Amino acid sequence: MRTRAAVALEAGKPLEVMEVNLDGPKAGEVLVEIKATGLCHTDEFTRSGADPEGIFPAILGHEGAGVVLECGPGVTSVKPGDHVIPLYTPECRECPSCLSRKTNLCTAIRDTQGRGLLPDGTTRFSMLDGTPIHHYMGCSTFANHTVIPEIALAKVREDAPFDKICYIGCGVTTGIGAVLNTARVEIGATAAVFGLGGIGLNVIQGLKMAGATMIIGVDINPERKAWGERFGMTHFVNPREVDNVVAHLVEMTRTPADRIGGVDYSFDCTGNTEVMRQALECTHRGWGESVVIGVAPAGAEISTRPFQLVTGRVWKGTAFGGARGRTDVPKFVDWYMDGRIQIDPMITHILSLEDINKGFDLMHEGASIRSVVVF
Amino acid sequence: MRTRAAVALEAGKPLEVMEVNLDGPKAGEVLVEIKATGLCHTDEFTRSGADPEGIFPAILGHEGAGVVLECGPGVTSVKPGDHVIPLYTPECRECPSCLSRKTNLCTAIRDTQGRGLLPDGTTRFSMLDGTPIHHYMGCSTFANHTVIPEIALAKVREDAPFDKICYIGCGVTTGIGAVLNTARVEIGATAAVFGLGGIGLNVIQGLKMAGATMIIGVDINPERKAWGERFGMTHFVNPREVDNVVAHLVEMTRTPADRIGGVDYSFDCTGNTEVMRQALECTHRGWGESVVIGVAPAGAEISTRPFQLVTGRVWKGTAFGGARGRTDVPKFVDWYMDGRIQIDPMITHILSLEDINKGFDLMHEGASIRSVVVF
Ligand SMILES: [Zn+2]
Ligand SMILES: [Zn+2]
Ligand SMILES: [Zn+2]
Ligand SMILES: [Zn+2]
Repeated sequence: MRTRAAVALEAGKPLEVMEVNLDGPKAGEVLVEIKATGLCHTDEFTRSGADPEGIFPAILGHEGAGVVLECGPGVTSVKPGDHVIPLYTPECRECPSCLSRKTNLCTAIRDTQGRGLLPDGTTRFSMLDGTPIHHYMGCSTFANHTVIPEIALAKVREDAPFDKICYIGCGVTTGIGAVLNTARVEIGATAAVFGLGGIGLNVIQGLKMAGATMIIGVDINPERKAWGERFGMTHFVNPREVDNVVAHLVEMTRTPADRIGGVDYSFDCTGNTEVMRQALECTHRGWGESVVIGVAPAGAEISTRPFQLVTGRVWKGTAFGGARGRTDVPKFVDWYMDGRIQIDPMITHILSLEDINKGFDLMHEGASIRSVVVF
Repeated sequence: MRTRAAVALEAGKPLEVMEVNLDGPKAGEVLVEIKATGLCHTDEFTRSGADPEGIFPAILGHEGAGVVLECGPGVTSVKPGDHVIPLYTPECRECPSCLSRKTNLCTAIRDTQGRGLLPDGTTRFSMLDGTPIHHYMGCSTFANHTVIPEIALAKVREDAPFDKICYIGCGVTTGIGAVLNTARVEIGATAAVFGLGGIGLNVIQGLKMAGATMIIGVDINPERKAWGERFGMTHFVNPREVDNVVAHLVEMTRTPADRIGGVDYSFDCTGNTEVMRQALECTHRGWGESVVIGVAPAGAEISTRPFQLVTGRVWKGTAFGGARGRTDVPKFVDWYMDGRIQIDPMITHILSLEDINKGFDLMHEGASIRSVVVF
């Protein structure tokens, strides 16, 4: 069949909207009609050429929602008509990682996914001249139709709006999941969130859900203060307005009973390795935990004195918020429909596929929290 | 009173054994007769001048065992005649850290202890000419008599031999505690231990206690292979005999069922920041945890790509094995007396106080696991 897609032809070039060929689903694969897709920083990381592992030409996009049109042989967990969210972190429930009970990082199709291919080592997309087009993060939601392995689809309820729940395919789950699954923040905790974009605001709403009592947002953009407050942020720090952000956060969290100070949990949502260090070092001696969420530039390294760890701080990271996609994503959709999770106010821009490059401009300007393309 | 002590007069100089003055215990303090003390790398770190926070003159030593001679006003938890192990990590049971249930890093007397003083801001030791001599890590076990805050004494059973249980005051508890308290290693786990000295061998015996099935020791000293095997090590790697120690460990831990490879837990007992990085990076994607135990040179920093954390590895540290001294140390003494913990074979040298500098020579030569001074 043919479908319409925004294709990344070369690193650093705008996406080009065009007709492409799409082969039908093979064994274990599913043809999905994408109804809506968010634009995430990771797409831009690849589009811009900053990702050294970026492969071109490719159809980017990994934050979508849609409807199953056709199932390849052997597919049993979804059927045509089902509403689904594609999962860039699949959940096969059979690999050592899925069976470990310790991680969500399913490895069943990791190798081919990393090479922009479906599990059989080929692509379903091609140019009209026959040139293969690579898949992206196993999703390629910047196409109106895409083929996805069954294990990378979360089946969700049918009354949920596509243009909102697509965001659960990455940003919402990453942010809230980092709090609930990775850090396991407890009621009464204090926390700092570095970077109040589409991930950081979800970390904030996760912290509110978890019952954190002091939720400090940190961002160099003063306009993000109002955004953070909307989702539960209790304090805001602009690093440009303080001498030393680590010392400032430690001071803010000192109490008469605890003169040591430092947050119980911190989250880096910036991808900046210097900020990651600050996020670790502003946590409380003895038990502070810092979670790296942001994607760092190629080759960048994090550093600290080992004394920070020996005195009880823990440095960890999260991918897809530690969520098992097929198990947890439908639950997040329920929570959204029940009003437990806010999504609508974060979706600041709705675009057509033709205008997808505007979405990246808005991202760079800091003018959007989330832009969503509706097909 | 007067007592005999090995005094560190200046950074980098051998200790000098001499008579010193010792004032009696003030409120909340206890006069202890030290019967035996181990020599730990941390003592040498300070003696040598490598520790930028080292203070001189001082009486070093923090791995001792002895008998209570006299209690200052208000002391209730120990009485003259009690056998005790001094604690460089006290346990006040009242500070925010002790009450957090999350850390053993009691902060009740941290400031004065770090400045080589007792909690009232003074020293009990002085030269015969009246010059004050600093305390060290709140213990100063290189003196035949010392004064220690009540909250820094673990009361232990009286049938346990001083020249063995002194080692529980640091090395044994640090190593075994890192496994049981900090990493919480589970039955069937795989682990790598970097550096098979007086701490690393105790990590190995902790791993055996915890039921780890693959215990890989890593040391550049081939003689440490036999040592490791004595305490439960199942595999030995000499980094000088392999191209890339991280790749080698990952390869060793691959199984037919799990082609990813990597150890579940790793422990750095070297203090070398490059080794700390290797210890992190050889752990399993998704859930590997690496624990920093070794003390790094002043100013040294650990580094890695944040991708290591985002893909599920956790970097943490431990001090005194995460043990609450007054609660856990008596239990470790019981375990030793019950034959659950081995200590005797690790105490390779018994010295008199006069020969204490020989102990540091043996340490540098790698000829000792533990030297113990018996008074
Ligand atoms: Zn994303
Ligand atoms: Zn799996
Ligand atoms: Zn020690
Ligand atoms: Zn305390």
